[in-house]
Amino acid sequence: MKAIHSLHQNLPATNLPNPYRLPLRIESYQDFKIEARPRQKPPNRAVRLAESWSSSLQLQIETAIHKSLGHSNKHNNLANIEDMQNTPTMSPKEDISEKWQEIHGSSEWDTLIDPLHPWLRREIIKYGEFAQATYDAFDFDPFSEYCGSCRYNRHKIFDKLGLSKSGYKVSAYIYAMSQIDLPRWLERSQLVDTWSKDSNWMGFVAVSDDEESKRIGRRDIVVAWRGTVAATEWYEDFQRKLQPIGEGDAKVEHGFLSIYTSKCDFTRYNKSSASEQVMKEVRNLVHFYKSRGEEVSLTITGHSLGGALALLNAYEAAASFPGLPVSVISFGAPRVGNIAFRDELYQMGVKTLRVTIRQDFVPRMPGIVFNESLQRFDDLTGTLEWIYTHVGVELKLDIRSSPYLKRGFNLMGFHMLETYLHLVDGFLSTTSTYRSDARRDAALVNKACDMLIDELRIPPSWYQLANKGLQCNAHGRWVKPKRDPEDIPSPTVELHSQNHVFDVQTHYALEPLFAS
Amino acid sequence: MKAIHSLHQNLPATNLPNPYRLPLRIESYQDFKIEARPRQKPPNRAVRLAESWSSSLQLQIETAIHKSLGHSNKHNNLANIEDMQNTPTMSPKEDISEKWQEIHGSSEWDTLIDPLHPWLRREIIKYGEFAQATYDAFDFDPFSEYCGSCRYNRHKIFDKLGLSKSGYKVSAYIYAMSQIDLPRWLERSQLVDTWSKDSNWMGFVAVSDDEESKRIGRRDIVVAWRGTVAATEWYEDFQRKLQPIGEGDAKVEHGFLSIYTSKCDFTRYNKSSASEQVMKEVRNLVHFYKSRGEEVSLTITGHSLGGALALLNAYEAAASFPGLPVSVISFGAPRVGNIAFRDELYQMGVKTLRVTIRQDFVPRMPGIVFNESLQRFDDLTGTLEWIYTHVGVELKLDIRSSPYLKRGFNLMGFHMLETYLHLVDGFLSTTSTYRSDARRDAALVNKACDMLIDELRIPPSWYQLANKGLQCNAHGRWVKPKRDPEDIPSPTVELHSQNHVFDVQTHYALEPLFAS
Repeated sequence: MKAIHSLHQNLPATNLPNPYRLPLRIESYQDFKIEARPRQKPPNRAVRLAESWSSSLQLQIETAIHKSLGHSNKHNNLANIEDMQNTPTMSPKEDISEKWQEIHGSSEWDTLIDPLHPWLRREIIKYGEFAQATYDAFDFDPFSEYCGSCRYNRHKIFDKLGLSKSGYKVSAYIYAMSQIDLPRWLERSQLVDTWSKDSNWMGFVAVSDDEESKRIGRRDIVVAWRGTVAATEWYEDFQRKLQPIGEGDAKVEHGFLSIYTSKCDFTRYNKSSASEQVMKEVRNLVHFYKSRGEEVSLTITGHSLGGALALLNAYEAAASFPGLPVSVISFGAPRVGNIAFRDELYQMGVKTLRVTIRQDFVPRMPGIVFNESLQRFDDLTGTLEWIYTHVGVELKLDIRSSPYLKRGFNLMGFHMLETYLHLVDGFLSTTSTYRSDARRDAALVNKACDMLIDELRIPPSWYQLANKGLQCNAHGRWVKPKRDPEDIPSPTVELHSQNHVFDVQTHYALEPLFAS
Repeated sequence: MKAIHSLHQNLPATNLPNPYRLPLRIESYQDFKIEARPRQKPPNRAVRLAESWSSSLQLQIETAIHKSLGHSNKHNNLANIEDMQNTPTMSPKEDISEKWQEIHGSSEWDTLIDPLHPWLRREIIKYGEFAQATYDAFDFDPFSEYCGSCRYNRHKIFDKLGLSKSGYKVSAYIYAMSQIDLPRWLERSQLVDTWSKDSNWMGFVAVSDDEESKRIGRRDIVVAWRGTVAATEWYEDFQRKLQPIGEGDAKVEHGFLSIYTSKCDFTRYNKSSASEQVMKEVRNLVHFYKSRGEEVSLTITGHSLGGALALLNAYEAAASFPGLPVSVISFGAPRVGNIAFRDELYQMGVKTLRVTIRQDFVPRMPGIVFNESLQRFDDLTGTLEWIYTHVGVELKLDIRSSPYLKRGFNLMGFHMLETYLHLVDGFLSTTSTYRSDARRDAALVNKACDMLIDELRIPPSWYQLANKGLQCNAHGRWVKPKRDPEDIPSPTVELHSQNHVFDVQTHYALEPLFAS
């Protein structure tokens, strides 16, 4: 914080349109209007350099726009808060089957994003809520013997989190090793006798049910990756080490790739890596539904670290399933790889919608110094393969657009996924204020941070268990109840057929995904 | 903290038996063996001076004892923690009617306290749990429109807090002004339209029911005063200003007296002061039960600030009801008044059992400098009326006696009332280790602090509402439900007959305390 403030103080006053503005001086800002028309073949260095200068210009223009938006209309939506508490939280579900390819990104969302098409907005929030589920169901309790696991089994998770009407069913859980040589990105229990010291639950694979598939025009497989909650601090530990991926010049950040690919025979959950687990499940599902003659899509989502993993997952899936439409919807994700990585993703047809908040620091990671400022330098020196770069189309949100959010600097609040979903819900276009008919419950923003204005009377960080899960037993003693046996993670149940050829028909005969 | 540590560093090593020892260098330590034989008439200066030196000697002896206890037996009771979870939490209730006067302090607890008599232990915990109830039921939520009130009405509070078998019924609530010119001792809502900006709920008056009265040998009226939770910080703000009370030389701390006596016609709850409210209720109850020919006692309890208010209340009650047995059981209370105040309490026959924890700072307040070090000086100079002094018999506990408690320095944890109750439950004598058959639930210690060893797997500060009281309504929105109308504080219901002569018979006819 102090570093940031002192940075501010060193800037000339004209560079500070308002006190909430983060230091953008050296950022090579890439507007989504530019990125919306992706380079299908890698641009040469001259083009890149030109774009870099053009981006700097873009920054000036944009600053002017935001100045004009400023702090106006702060309270224009507050009068009817009491009324809002008695309205439904969901927008109506429309039949989008005719337009599903465009909503899935086939045309890089070029006509759908500014202004934001209501159907696309609804889909972004749908996927974002899957990503949010990976936080809400996660056992963070360092005193729990199941710390680092999901609190519910895959059949119950959506019911428990109020997602039973999502139209999707979870088909598998994903685990990643937590003991790899990394900063504190993953959770570790303080206890000795835990379910697994080595692994963390990292997300799930889900599939649309028949009704939802009809509405959205295809069978949609979703992979939701869990991120990190306190990421803003942890990203300071970025190793800034690029590591090759694939056959070409593509390189990605070492830590992300470690989480995605690490495995160890001596663990319970990571005899196979997260990559192997998710690819096996997706392969089975794709083959199963394709064999029934269905159209199938893959949508990978994640927030923060989860957004980085989503991109690695998309890279691998696109390489493995040519012709399968693969999209990534990421929220507050950091940069993952170099320019060759980005270009290969484009060439394979992966569509990425990258949702960011202007005030969120994480999308600027790894390090401003290692990117924006050096990029121009390296454009000239030619060491481009060492530069992290962003991928895809950006939907850029702004904290200041919402009348419900506090204006103070809040490193954590700016990065929380619920803040993202709140802003997406209110986003009309880059030149509009917050949508007055936004219906998503604003209270959700404060689940794990303190971002809502006091007038809403929503306590900060309110998402918590009664008495931290302790219950008073028949003897009047406060004890932690045993977890429901069916929610205790077990490799034999969770990771069916780890070492055998997976038989889709047997699998679904034994554990039907959907009652037909 | 830093000040303490640097103090430590300046002490010679021989004065530091272990790292958890607080700086006692300048303390005029008064052992309860000395205080257990109170001076029924004020001792002269020569006696005081002699005692002061004798106390210094006592400190040396005691240090040796504690050295020998040391850290041994740390885990001797831990093996059977799992078993303990399936045992009752309460010691059996014995008929104490034959000995009630001694347990109530008639003989200054001289033969009951070391070793601690089981009947007395049980009674101390009973009163301590009434004091704890004033915290557990208090609305601390700054976003609540009822911040500063009790969350339940007086008919429900004991049921809600698991005290329905206590054998007492609450007959009235006490309010004190929160807006008086004081440091942050009382709670204030952040909202504008609260139930009362001016007042805080400060405790209750309760009466033993017929069955309990039979067991304890008399009708017992209890006054429980709420204290302050973060008192350890707040006491730094002590104004150290003594103010006269009563007719003689007695003086007490200005802030305590302000809370006890302030009133204002423009408030809803403090048109009468806390003093007037509690004295009116006690008067009515005493007259009511005396008129039925019953033996009646008054027991006043409180923790921290609440212990200070208990002493003021006892002073006033003893002066108002000559012949009524009046006892104070205080926990972690600071000094309240000067030596004349103490002597007048003795002369009026008020019995005070002052429970302290060696490591708790609050009983050393106001300021070490203003007491121990100056006392000897003032013994010589004769300005005794300016010196704060403690009252009554001390039951001195030690954090290190319990195998369940962490050994690290924890300013807040050492002061919490639940820590006190845990240590009382395990106390056998000054030379014994923690009682192996102590049954009170150790988990309670961590309600609002982090004192329990990790092996117990009780999360720190676990006493919390699910989702901070937010509930998901029929529309899927998270809202703070309206408080049950019967729990909304209302001066007309709460403070019956504010401006009228109180008619006991009518009162109990309308609102019978006990179904007969």
